[in-house]
Amino acid sequence: MDDIEAIKQLKARYCRLLDTKDWEGYRQVLTDDVVIDTTDYGGNVVTGGDAFLEFLRVALADTVTVHQCHTPEITMTSPSSADGIWAMEDRVRFPDGTDLNGFGHYHETYEKADGTWRIKASKLTRLRMDFAKPASG
Amino acid sequence: MDDIEAIKQLKARYCRLLDTKDWEGYRQVLTDDVVIDTTDYGGNVVTGGDAFLEFLRVALADTVTVHQCHTPEITMTSPSSADGIWAMEDRVRFPDGTDLNGFGHYHETYEKADGTWRIKASKLTRLRMDFAKPASG
Amino acid sequence: MDDIEAIKQLKARYCRLLDTKDWEGYRQVLTDDVVIDTTDYGGNVVTGGDAFLEFLRVALADTVTVHQCHTPEITMTSPSSADGIWAMEDRVRFPDGTDLNGFGHYHETYEKADGTWRIKASKLTRLRMDFAKPASG
Repeated sequence: MDDIEAIKQLKARYCRLLDTKDWEGYRQVLTDDVVIDTTDYGGNVVTGGDAFLEFLRVALADTVTVHQCHTPEITMTSPSSADGIWAMEDRVRFPDGTDLNGFGHYHETYEKADGTWRIKASKLTRLRMDFAKPASG
Repeated sequence: MDDIEAIKQLKARYCRLLDTKDWEGYRQVLTDDVVIDTTDYGGNVVTGGDAFLEFLRVALADTVTVHQCHTPEITMTSPSSADGIWAMEDRVRFPDGTDLNGFGHYHETYEKADGTWRIKASKLTRLRMDFAKPASG
Repeated sequence: MDDIEAIKQLKARYCRLLDTKDWEGYRQVLTDDVVIDTTDYGGNVVTGGDAFLEFLRVALADTVTVHQCHTPEITMTSPSSADGIWAMEDRVRFPDGTDLNGFGHYHETYEKADGTWRIKASKLTRLRMDFAKPASG
C-alpha cells in the first residue's frame, strides 16, 4: 500500500472509530502532540491527543454521530510527512433530540513514525451548519 | 489498475447499478455464493447472488434509492482475496412517500476469479436509521 | 502520483473551489473547450470554460453550495485521456431560503495537457432532486 492510500485509510479509521466510539482505537490515529483547531466556527485550539480525546468523550457522550469524508487531496511533503484537504459532512444527534448537520473541509498534516501514519494537525473550516429538531422520530 | 483500486471501482458499480436499477449489471458484482447479512438491524442472511437479486427486485420495486459509500479500508489477504470496510449512507423513498435515511458500515470480503473482483460477503451494521415523511413534495 | 489519483484530486478541487467560490482556481479545472451538459434534468449544454464560469457566477451568487463526489470509476483511454463516473450529491441554499438537495452521477471525460489533467466534458444525470424550505433557521 502506498503512502497516499495509507493516509486515506488513516482518515477512514478516524471517522469510523469516532462514530463507533472506539476511543482506544481512535487515540491511535492522532500524534501525541496533535493540534485540533475549530476556531473557524467558534471552537478552540486543543493541543495533544490525550487532551482532545478527553474533550471528545465528554462532548459526545450520549450522542449519535456520523462523520463522512470525501475527495481527499493528499500531497506528500517528505517521505514521512504529508498535507491533506478533505471535504467533510458531520451529523450529531444530541441527547435532547437536536440534530446538527454540518459541512466543511478538514485541512490537515500527517506524520509517519515507526511505519505508521498519524494526524498531526487538523483545522476544520465550515461551509454550513444546520441545527434542527427531527421532523419525526 | 491495482487490486485496491479495482475493488474500490467494484463497490462503485455496486452502488451505481443498484441505484439505476441495472439488475443484470448489478448481479455481476456479486459472487454466485455471496452472503448478505443485515441481521444487525433486524434483517436476514441471504445466500446466493441470484437469491439476493430476487429479494432486491421485489423490495426496491417502485422505490427511488441512493447508496453512497465512503472512505474504504481495503486490506489484501491474498493475491485473490481482500477484506474491506466502507462507511455508507442510504436513502430509500418508498411508494407511499416515506423516506428512509440510514448510516452505517459495510464489512465485506472480496474474491478475484478469472481476473475479476466480486463481493463474496457483506454485513451491514448501522449507526442510525431515520424514517420520515418528506417535508415538502 | 499516478494518473487515476491525479484525476481524483482534479475532481476534489472542482468541488472545493466551487463551494468556496474560488472562481479563478475553479476555472483551471476546466479545459477551454469544456462541454457541460445538464439536459437530463431540464438544463442546457454550455460550451467553454469561460462561458460556464460566467453562468455559474450568476446562478450561484448569494447561494451557499455543497458538492460532494463519491466512488469514482476512472478508466484511462490513452496516456492523456480518461473517462470517469462519479456518484454526486449537491446542496444549494438559495437567497430566499429554499434548499435544493440533489443526487445523481457525473459522466465525464478528462484530458491531460502540459502535465495537467482537466475536465473536458461533464454530463450530470439525476436520481432525485428535493426542494424544501428549511425546517428551522
